[in-house]
Amino acid sequence: MNETLNILDKRRSVRSFLEKEITPEDAKAIKIATLRAPTAGNMTLYSVIEVTDQKEKETLATLCDDQPMIAKAPMVWIFLADMQKWVNYFQEGGSKAKGEQKNLAAWRNPGLGDLHLCLQDAIIAAQTSVIAAESLGIGSCYIGDILENFEQVKTVLNLSSYTIPACMVVFGYKKNQQEIKLTPRCLEESIFMENQYQELHLDQLEAAFSPLEKQRRATNSLPFDNTGSIADYYYFKKHTSDFMEEMNRSTAVMFDHWTKA
Amino acid sequence: MNETLNILDKRRSVRSFLEKEITPEDAKAIKIATLRAPTAGNMTLYSVIEVTDQKEKETLATLCDDQPMIAKAPMVWIFLADMQKWVNYFQEGGSKAKGEQKNLAAWRNPGLGDLHLCLQDAIIAAQTSVIAAESLGIGSCYIGDILENFEQVKTVLNLSSYTIPACMVVFGYKKNQQEIKLTPRCLEESIFMENQYQELHLDQLEAAFSPLEKQRRATNSLPFDNTGSIADYYYFKKHTSDFMEEMNRSTAVMFDHWTKA
Repeated sequence: MNETLNILDKRRSVRSFLEKEITPEDAKAIKIATLRAPTAGNMTLYSVIEVTDQKEKETLATLCDDQPMIAKAPMVWIFLADMQKWVNYFQEGGSKAKGEQKNLAAWRNPGLGDLHLCLQDAIIAAQTSVIAAESLGIGSCYIGDILENFEQVKTVLNLSSYTIPACMVVFGYKKNQQEIKLTPRCLEESIFMENQYQELHLDQLEAAFSPLEKQRRATNSLPFDNTGSIADYYYFKKHTSDFMEEMNRSTAVMFDHWTKA
Repeated sequence: MNETLNILDKRRSVRSFLEKEITPEDAKAIKIATLRAPTAGNMTLYSVIEVTDQKEKETLATLCDDQPMIAKAPMVWIFLADMQKWVNYFQEGGSKAKGEQKNLAAWRNPGLGDLHLCLQDAIIAAQTSVIAAESLGIGSCYIGDILENFEQVKTVLNLSSYTIPACMVVFGYKKNQQEIKLTPRCLEESIFMENQYQELHLDQLEAAFSPLEKQRRATNSLPFDNTGSIADYYYFKKHTSDFMEEMNRSTAVMFDHWTKA
């Protein structure tokens, strides 16, 4: 196993970091690696907001389902799907394009296809930064809750029409590498399929997620006095939670913000 | 610079590969690394369809804006945002959850927040696979055009209600590593912002993308007899292209397929 595979294999999300700033050298190395991430047509359809202001970190910690660890993280990056830069460049520059555009009536506002492509670019960049960081001994965690409370997040981050959160990552030096235990994953064969999608049903799903259920049973974290299944766990803890309801509401507003700009 | 940073730094997308199958050992190593990618709540909200059937590769090559290189690629993976597995598991299993669901009327169909989270999971997994492959000397290229022709793609891939394409990657051994030249990127300072989004305007955008414009001018690939700008180039080649129009139409259908299932 080469060094990179070893890093990918050993990585797990960490939520608690050493109280130590990321050094400028390490931050720079992560930025350089991020910028090399593949991007559709080399258009870099994303931007990254680094949140350095402590009050803003605390506001975001509240908006992201009240997670104080966000405010404590040494480095907080929000990856935006960003088509705004190209809208501006098309409209303000490219005089010939503007001339043609009037003749051809070819102008169009960005749509959901652009949004999807921009999300891809931003998330590809994010995972590149996560792996670059990991190679430097810097742990990280994605914060899915950046999808909540879009109206407030938009104000806090000063988002333009064609910019939306793609994902959020917090970074910091790891506290104690020996302590990090890998989380069990579902079975590989439940993820990889050949030629066509195969819907999994109960028996297969129970087998696929048995390593997770076993782990939760061992730590007494299943519902109904630990007699429930991992499906019960996710159903109550995630699927029917207030934060998922909010995430669904907020993301609908977010997509409307883009398509109805 | 450590080995992983070096790999990230040297990677570029490649579209033409050695005519050599990916060895089972390398394919397995990529799968293992992919499965370790971070995933929201450890739910692995994605699946991967490996397209091995040559006829299906050719159909997808046509559906993805007529790109024969797809049919020639040794390994073709489509990453799906996949909430279907959990819908099935919630509905078929977890009798207590089902009982509660009836009492509490807590059942809800997946929404756009779920879709966004699933896209994140799938694309994070994809970029992990790309980097794992790169470390093994296997080149790759994302194919954005998998977002087109959703109705046909859905049929070809046998997609269920809560499964949509997140991205597509083709892989293969590189032909000649010496030949790979890095593509210039926009300036780093145009991507990374502090605390708030800063809309870029003409002067900044011209500076930000000048390395790309310079490259295209050097290779005579700008519009209007090479006097146009990089904004003109993207405006005509991408933004107002037939394939972007199709991508926008198709992605709207794709998202409806999910929300109106």
